[in-house]
Amino acid sequence: MRPALLPLLVAAALAPAFTVHADEAPRPKTTQELLDASLASDWRTLDPASTLYLELDSGRVVIELAPDFAPEHVGNIRTLAHEGYWNGMSINRSQDNFVVQWGDPAEEGQPRKSLGSAKAKLPAEFERKAEGLDFHALPDKDGWAPQVGFAGGFPAARDPQSGEAWLAHCYGAVGAGRDVAADSSDGSELYVVDGQSPRQLDRNITLVGRVVDGMERLSVLPRGTGPLGFYEEAAQRVPIKSIRLAADVPEAERSRLQVLRTDTPLFDAVVESRRNRRDDWYKRPAGHIDLCNISIPTRVPPADSDS
Amino acid sequence: MRPALLPLLVAAALAPAFTVHADEAPRPKTTQELLDASLASDWRTLDPASTLYLELDSGRVVIELAPDFAPEHVGNIRTLAHEGYWNGMSINRSQDNFVVQWGDPAEEGQPRKSLGSAKAKLPAEFERKAEGLDFHALPDKDGWAPQVGFAGGFPAARDPQSGEAWLAHCYGAVGAGRDVAADSSDGSELYVVDGQSPRQLDRNITLVGRVVDGMERLSVLPRGTGPLGFYEEAAQRVPIKSIRLAADVPEAERSRLQVLRTDTPLFDAVVESRRNRRDDWYKRPAGHIDLCNISIPTRVPPADSDS
Repeated sequence: MRPALLPLLVAAALAPAFTVHADEAPRPKTTQELLDASLASDWRTLDPASTLYLELDSGRVVIELAPDFAPEHVGNIRTLAHEGYWNGMSINRSQDNFVVQWGDPAEEGQPRKSLGSAKAKLPAEFERKAEGLDFHALPDKDGWAPQVGFAGGFPAARDPQSGEAWLAHCYGAVGAGRDVAADSSDGSELYVVDGQSPRQLDRNITLVGRVVDGMERLSVLPRGTGPLGFYEEAAQRVPIKSIRLAADVPEAERSRLQVLRTDTPLFDAVVESRRNRRDDWYKRPAGHIDLCNISIPTRVPPADSDS
Repeated sequence: MRPALLPLLVAAALAPAFTVHADEAPRPKTTQELLDASLASDWRTLDPASTLYLELDSGRVVIELAPDFAPEHVGNIRTLAHEGYWNGMSINRSQDNFVVQWGDPAEEGQPRKSLGSAKAKLPAEFERKAEGLDFHALPDKDGWAPQVGFAGGFPAARDPQSGEAWLAHCYGAVGAGRDVAADSSDGSELYVVDGQSPRQLDRNITLVGRVVDGMERLSVLPRGTGPLGFYEEAAQRVPIKSIRLAADVPEAERSRLQVLRTDTPLFDAVVESRRNRRDDWYKRPAGHIDLCNISIPTRVPPADSDS
């Protein structure tokens, strides 16, 4: 039997070249065909001042920070990364279908660690004014928020009534762990969503960014057997070699990564190609897509491209 | 900083005992408090004739089959398990945020394998008549289907207009891989969802059951680096020691596992406790829950219970 469940890239690669028969409408382009026809201007390069490199033994995880949504937390995270706060610490939690987490010295049996130049106290940044935000709304309905879409490349939500917008807890979302008090996070303890989108956390905790590359280095980590997926033995924790701001990394060592812009007609077409799959395998296009089912394509730019 | 993101069980365990102050309404019970107060009749024991044990080096994965939705596929799967079809094969695919998969000898470089007494050809079982099904609907809206809820313990959807019902692709869903033709699955190739619910697959492929225990043995498997997450090297594949029907396993070796019934007032209360989190940590109850955010509790029954 042929490998089943042909999605995205390979399904497209296996599909015959685009053909139009005289008696039928042209087949809608597949996701891959759309991406193949993209222009340099459809892609954006990550800002090194808002990009974190989490280095594990297995390789690099690239995180894009979201200063438009959590400026105070991102400020602290930049400082903590610049001063090497997390270097030599470890991922200490991996809870199945939920999150991985790191940054609390107490969980590693260590005394409280100085935050260095970072601020000891930050405001909760659960949401922001929607005004001034380039919010690209999806037509699809959502149970958690009046509107969902993308803002600055991040999956987000908006409430036209309250005039507020916030980041959404999709796969790969990075947030700042907190205690019971809403303003008890300082950006030193971070978690990454690696399960079914826990949207109930939206507007209950500060999201600070999103993993754009290397999620599979986090999602495969053995699950902790303690409560909430914390590792029970020191040997089970996953060493963090370093977390650095890309701006602090020599240019030659930076990831050559581009992310598809989410505010373009091409992106709308890509989303539509996922909302209604038209390849031979799908018998019934869904006519819908959930915000968190949309993965944002990345690429290494072609050698002849300088944008 | 205290470990953040206190969800479910531990948050409840840390919460003070249920107390009522003279001047305030009683606090709604937490999920854990509800489960602690459950009766034996709130739980059900898996039917050994509809339960598969997938044995890996890391331990057992328990799958409940859904004969009410896919009787022909379940029939074949029972036969294949009884005759040891998958024993000695391997998990050959692990695609991040999507599925793990096994059962295609070609992917292991092996010749076609006899299906033994199993049928060579099955009908597609993408949906069934809703009539005769005890469908327990959720009040929450869903973008993929007119109604969602639970039927026989499985997350499912229903269309009152067409009179059809079908299983939903939530985390842990088990399906039968197929080729391009709708009726090309025979139950020998199976996949398990281990990422954001790919509901676009609903009614496009036959779901045959659900993992009720041991998901973390599958979700941590290293991702394959070939197209669609297939492993490229034989050494990367994960050996399947055996897949057996629980009915074929000596009673002493069966998992003593019970699953919370989904057609009871207690289950409605559990879902409500997840829809609107009322513990001290949550500042804004969501007022909504997605079908695939509801995990169905399991337990090892207490020693003094025989139900």
